[in-house]
Amino acid sequence: MPPASTAATLPTLRWIGEIDGCLALIDQTLLPVECREIECRTAEATWEAIKSLRVRGAPAIGVAAAYGVCLGIQSVRDRPEAELFARLSKVCDYLATSRPTAVNLFWALDRMRRTGESLRGKTPVAEIAARLLAEARAIEEEDRRMCRAIGRHGAELFADNSGVLTHCNAGGLATADYGTALAVIFAAHEAGKRLHVFADETRPLLQGARLTAWELLQRGIETTLICDSMAAQVMREGRIAAVIVGADRITANGDTANKIGTYSVAVLARHHQIPFYVAAPSSTFDFSIASGVEIPIEHRNPQEVTHGFGRQTAPTGVAVYNPAFDVTPAELIAAFVTERGVIRPPYLEYLRILREPN
Amino acid sequence: MPPASTAATLPTLRWIGEIDGCLALIDQTLLPVECREIECRTAEATWEAIKSLRVRGAPAIGVAAAYGVCLGIQSVRDRPEAELFARLSKVCDYLATSRPTAVNLFWALDRMRRTGESLRGKTPVAEIAARLLAEARAIEEEDRRMCRAIGRHGAELFADNSGVLTHCNAGGLATADYGTALAVIFAAHEAGKRLHVFADETRPLLQGARLTAWELLQRGIETTLICDSMAAQVMREGRIAAVIVGADRITANGDTANKIGTYSVAVLARHHQIPFYVAAPSSTFDFSIASGVEIPIEHRNPQEVTHGFGRQTAPTGVAVYNPAFDVTPAELIAAFVTERGVIRPPYLEYLRILREPN
Repeated sequence: MPPASTAATLPTLRWIGEIDGCLALIDQTLLPVECREIECRTAEATWEAIKSLRVRGAPAIGVAAAYGVCLGIQSVRDRPEAELFARLSKVCDYLATSRPTAVNLFWALDRMRRTGESLRGKTPVAEIAARLLAEARAIEEEDRRMCRAIGRHGAELFADNSGVLTHCNAGGLATADYGTALAVIFAAHEAGKRLHVFADETRPLLQGARLTAWELLQRGIETTLICDSMAAQVMREGRIAAVIVGADRITANGDTANKIGTYSVAVLARHHQIPFYVAAPSSTFDFSIASGVEIPIEHRNPQEVTHGFGRQTAPTGVAVYNPAFDVTPAELIAAFVTERGVIRPPYLEYLRILREPN
Repeated sequence: MPPASTAATLPTLRWIGEIDGCLALIDQTLLPVECREIECRTAEATWEAIKSLRVRGAPAIGVAAAYGVCLGIQSVRDRPEAELFARLSKVCDYLATSRPTAVNLFWALDRMRRTGESLRGKTPVAEIAARLLAEARAIEEEDRRMCRAIGRHGAELFADNSGVLTHCNAGGLATADYGTALAVIFAAHEAGKRLHVFADETRPLLQGARLTAWELLQRGIETTLICDSMAAQVMREGRIAAVIVGADRITANGDTANKIGTYSVAVLARHHQIPFYVAAPSSTFDFSIASGVEIPIEHRNPQEVTHGFGRQTAPTGVAVYNPAFDVTPAELIAAFVTERGVIRPPYLEYLRILREPN
């Protein structure tokens, strides 16, 4: 295992070596106290890293899963075509069970599966694994470009010298690089705008405190950490000009699944007449689902709430409700910031554009 | 120190012995893992217990402070009258510095001071300490009766088989006995109504998880613990018919200071058209203040947010905003439940009634 390092030198995830290489990723469960990489050498290790939130954030999960497919077929890459494709299909099915809500996971796995199918019977078996690795690398590279484009398009939304609130982590750690919601903040900051960011700590797993505050400080952006219950108060004090969050899945009508607590922030923003923005790449849009009620919501272990940080903080035996996500209805969203531009209501019209090929 | 015990056998606080006795109170910072009393033998120990939240909740703070006055004058109770009264005044001023927001603290201290003054020059010095102890006991006893009356008046607000959400702890642990917001739930439960209570965990200090969930389970009431950020979601799912909370100070126009996050819940309740109730004794009403903007808000140690669970969960050096309270404007409050009855808008008219002697 490589030694602990600073984030500046480590990307969220990276493929090490060539076709027989491995996936290295920052173990985000150790942040902010320690920034250390782990190496996934099997599809199972990748599944565990996604399930345990060592890598999290919808776009980053997609990239990790694509590399997980490459790991899953390593041992059969010189076997007969039928065997290779049987394994490819099995590995994709398996990785899809790691987390149910973020659509980028399924999108990336579909893409790997389709890439494989497109080569079947046409390409020498010996080359297929290399082509799949190239596809995973392409997904990663596109994610980087997408993040930069989201930042570029969204930066105009923030005025100089203004306060921005964000929830959970939609930063560089949630993507291959640079982030989605935080990309907009980073791009505005790089364009010379002075922003003051309020980061919701984001219970139960504190991605806002552990990851977002850490990323913002690393880039020298003024940051104040608050508990989720304080967002309404800072809004009331007039300290927030805009809210921006990421997304795990956006349905055809614009309803948006994101980290639990996002819906709460959206309602509070509406009450205080503050615009609420969602930043996400087009791979987060799921046009197969008409509205948010159809999105499967992951429910996580009650111990995340009752024993959040290694200590019991609730009475033994209490029932716990611990959904990982909620759905913000489209009518509370002022605009989507995508790699293709800022999309404002009415969404039904504009979202149709995203369905078309780039 | 007495051995750890179960709550059923221990009141929130109690005076042990007579005039040279001491104040025993459950150290609430140890709950829910351990239910243990500590004994305060000085005003300083009482101040520390209030400041450190070993005893908390506006009514309980008032009772504890009254007993703290008795402890503070123990050593001078046989001294000349001038010396006794000088100490009484000093002890009251000192205890008032323990926490700035809950008005019951100042109300109880004023009452002790006024009781002392009414005896000055009329009562043998040797009797004054005993009369002050009797006054503290009266404050405690009135608090018990008040809680029961609040429960009785409020129980009608909840329908059978309905969901109720509460924030922080306004239960038996926040009062001498039985609670304010939880008193209403307890009384409805005792009247045979089946309630399902959702308890906000209440970051940063988790009074909802540690204290409210514990009290509700002890009384056999169906309870589900949620993170503060999940309240909006359970409301949206139609699982909440009413919200009820306690209060630390209510101004002449009905604006209400209570634990940080209360305002957030009130806004969310309004958005979901759920009635939001505040339960508090008349000692919580501060008619000397016209509206909520004048209430001093206590700001607490950033470490409550960054090292909340005994472990560092935020990057070193991040700024933290940690107000202990927020103010819910009167227009978001459907009714106040007091020991004199349920008060509904328009408040200006009805609150006037509370100013009159009982």
